[in-house]
Amino acid sequence: MLLPALTDFADRNDDFRVFVGTGFLVGVICALIAVATRGERPQFTQKLGFLLVTTVWLAACLIGSLPLYFSSVNVTFAGAFFESMSGLTTTGSTVISGLDTLPRGILLWRSLLQWLGGIGIIGMVLLILPSLQAGGLALFHMESSDKSDKVLPRVNQLTGGLIAAYVALTLMCAIAYTSLGMTFFDATNHAMTTMATGGYSTHDASMGYFDDNRILIASTVFMVLAALPFVVYVRAFLPRRFQLWRDPQILVFLVICAVLSFAIAVTRRIINDTPFGEALVSSTFNLVSVITTTGYASEDYTLWSNAAIGIFFLASFLGGCAGSTAGGIKANRLVVLYLVVRASFRRLVRPHAVIRLKYGNDDISAQTIQTVTIFFFLFFGTLLLGTVLLTMFGLDLITAFSGTLTALSNVGPGFGQIIGPAGNFSTLPDPALWVLSAAMLLGRLELVTVLILLFPSVWID
Amino acid sequence: MLLPALTDFADRNDDFRVFVGTGFLVGVICALIAVATRGERPQFTQKLGFLLVTTVWLAACLIGSLPLYFSSVNVTFAGAFFESMSGLTTTGSTVISGLDTLPRGILLWRSLLQWLGGIGIIGMVLLILPSLQAGGLALFHMESSDKSDKVLPRVNQLTGGLIAAYVALTLMCAIAYTSLGMTFFDATNHAMTTMATGGYSTHDASMGYFDDNRILIASTVFMVLAALPFVVYVRAFLPRRFQLWRDPQILVFLVICAVLSFAIAVTRRIINDTPFGEALVSSTFNLVSVITTTGYASEDYTLWSNAAIGIFFLASFLGGCAGSTAGGIKANRLVVLYLVVRASFRRLVRPHAVIRLKYGNDDISAQTIQTVTIFFFLFFGTLLLGTVLLTMFGLDLITAFSGTLTALSNVGPGFGQIIGPAGNFSTLPDPALWVLSAAMLLGRLELVTVLILLFPSVWID
Ligand SMILES: [K+]
Ligand SMILES: [K+]
Repeated sequence: MLLPALTDFADRNDDFRVFVGTGFLVGVICALIAVATRGERPQFTQKLGFLLVTTVWLAACLIGSLPLYFSSVNVTFAGAFFESMSGLTTTGSTVISGLDTLPRGILLWRSLLQWLGGIGIIGMVLLILPSLQAGGLALFHMESSDKSDKVLPRVNQLTGGLIAAYVALTLMCAIAYTSLGMTFFDATNHAMTTMATGGYSTHDASMGYFDDNRILIASTVFMVLAALPFVVYVRAFLPRRFQLWRDPQILVFLVICAVLSFAIAVTRRIINDTPFGEALVSSTFNLVSVITTTGYASEDYTLWSNAAIGIFFLASFLGGCAGSTAGGIKANRLVVLYLVVRASFRRLVRPHAVIRLKYGNDDISAQTIQTVTIFFFLFFGTLLLGTVLLTMFGLDLITAFSGTLTALSNVGPGFGQIIGPAGNFSTLPDPALWVLSAAMLLGRLELVTVLILLFPSVWID
Repeated sequence: MLLPALTDFADRNDDFRVFVGTGFLVGVICALIAVATRGERPQFTQKLGFLLVTTVWLAACLIGSLPLYFSSVNVTFAGAFFESMSGLTTTGSTVISGLDTLPRGILLWRSLLQWLGGIGIIGMVLLILPSLQAGGLALFHMESSDKSDKVLPRVNQLTGGLIAAYVALTLMCAIAYTSLGMTFFDATNHAMTTMATGGYSTHDASMGYFDDNRILIASTVFMVLAALPFVVYVRAFLPRRFQLWRDPQILVFLVICAVLSFAIAVTRRIINDTPFGEALVSSTFNLVSVITTTGYASEDYTLWSNAAIGIFFLASFLGGCAGSTAGGIKANRLVVLYLVVRASFRRLVRPHAVIRLKYGNDDISAQTIQTVTIFFFLFFGTLLLGTVLLTMFGLDLITAFSGTLTALSNVGPGFGQIIGPAGNFSTLPDPALWVLSAAMLLGRLELVTVLILLFPSVWID
């Protein structure tokens, strides 16, 4: 699966011979982890599993960074690693400026990293992470959306379905982009980074380069599709028990998108006097881009107004649906958090009432509540500590805070003069890039997978 | 208790006759609530309790705002209400500039509001809020620190002890300030706002006006004392079972203070080349001021470095100990959150281990965990929504975010050009002041007390 894409790519750019080698390495590593995860002895599953998942991502990022580091692009190793991590975690923050004049090989490499990272995270969340919970805390119960092993009895079928859906959607997206006037190269790259909710572009101006509302609308549609739980598409492929609205997070996510987009358009109508129709298209595109954690921009939306900035800031936390390529807190957790708060308010008023929490048709277990809760602590704790660390390397508060946030949520652009949608991460010092790389990995692997490794008692028997 | 102080005050400023009236009103309201809380029928306790507590605070703020609104100070009603709320919640954010030339009556009124708000919150958290949990969720279990009804069998004794401790510490603080060269008026005012961890000053330059390291050190000591759980002093008064270190939050709080102060001093030594000894005094004073949620400043610490800003930003979240006059997340919750995260990591690695959580010598109940968790959600949820609301009124992101934070945590100063330690809230539009007033009340009443009233199901039977 990896090699054809990589070969096709290497063909196109014979000056980067290192690509073939790295592509091969990635393939080997992937095979190794697949074997290792299967052959693992049961009693070692938990510790080894977390260690393996983290190691594989780190190794993949290392491999992904090599072509960038050895290429003609002027980046430090920290920069190359950051760029690769930003690709594979589908964050999309970049240290490279002057994308328009970059070798096409490098551009395609960046897009491929995101595309592979996208299917990688869907696969990992649905297939590998649930096995880590076996017999333990149902840590990723919500990620698997609804017992996928019931929906599709066999893992192979699910894997095949996911890949097919991902490829099909990417193709459809590429065709849509091409038909709307993008070159084949731009369409391919943007289709890959759209479906990965990655946000890497082949132009410094991102989607603004094309200056075409129809492209923005098409992109909006595919970003939303990419941020829905992918099990939906697999069910669509094998259409028994197909119930799109059974998963409450989908409705919640779509409603949040609609409300916030509308709110931004309204503020632009009032504050900037932008015609509402025009404002609605670009507001929806940029808001959907942030909330799906894609990170494209059609223009510098932080110039619209403080009110718009506030909404984009909120959207940077929220994220898409679990089981998709999107990051952030995610709509399923928002649903659970809301239900938990409501239940505890009710208990406070009616101490003797028996309250059962239901996520869709399923009861929410105490373990699920704990899992979501822990994620929330870790998210905000990491956000604050990351901010403090970055200020230690001289970053101002807004850059440090929004940088950590955008990395943890895998969004891409931050706020402020430096890393806002019109800026990039090229001026940040190397130590800051390392911190942000760590934050991207933490966010992508749902925090606990990595943080548990830092916890001493894990290593004591 | 209220009237002597108010009379003493009215004597001094015969031009403000409205003070006597308002003072009397506060007394009457306090008496009313005391009667109402006792005479309440059991089945109405929960709902009525939350409603009453919120109403009383709102009424007190309204009363407190009247002298400011009708005085010679040039403020809108929103400004006067904000100032009064900021006083009674011991936040200390101010819309008034030119404090040095203000009538002394107004200055004393502001200090008195904070001082009364300080003892009010200690009393409420220890005496009234636990009764709201009767038969229901142990929502304020942690706030009452350790079953105060066991430490002191009778509520009257506890109340008397708390007031005595509060008055005694305020007197000691005033004596310390006077002996270090403050005028009697300045010493009295600052002693009251120190023990309330309020932060109102009689000078625009805050504690920087006195330019005396000995005053900073004395102030630091008393701020720390004010941020410790007050039950400690009551136990000291009645010295059976006196164990200062039994409550783990005290040690955690002191260690955090020491580590962060030291860290700031180090960054100033490295970045600003400030001599370490000199840096340590002012770093400790300003950091303790923020973490105890007092909010004094000896200089504009946001000019020191981005690294210092990062640490002050973190400190704005943390807060002091529960059962004190301090706000913020509070050390007891930090302890519980840490234990919960650790336990869930352990469970993940050792699925079959039985893990009991202990806070000091006491088991942590599932209800306590839920209470702390809910607080955490509400805190960050309110913080984000408050930020978005404030940007709607035109505030920039850093002012909106740090303004909401500083209000929710009852700290006082925010970050950025406008509401930083060198600025004030006078330029904010009225709607923003209302939002911030609400945030201060929410933070002071531990969020749930107020938010539960906004929840429809509370009103449905
Ligand atoms: K992204
Ligand atoms: K304060």
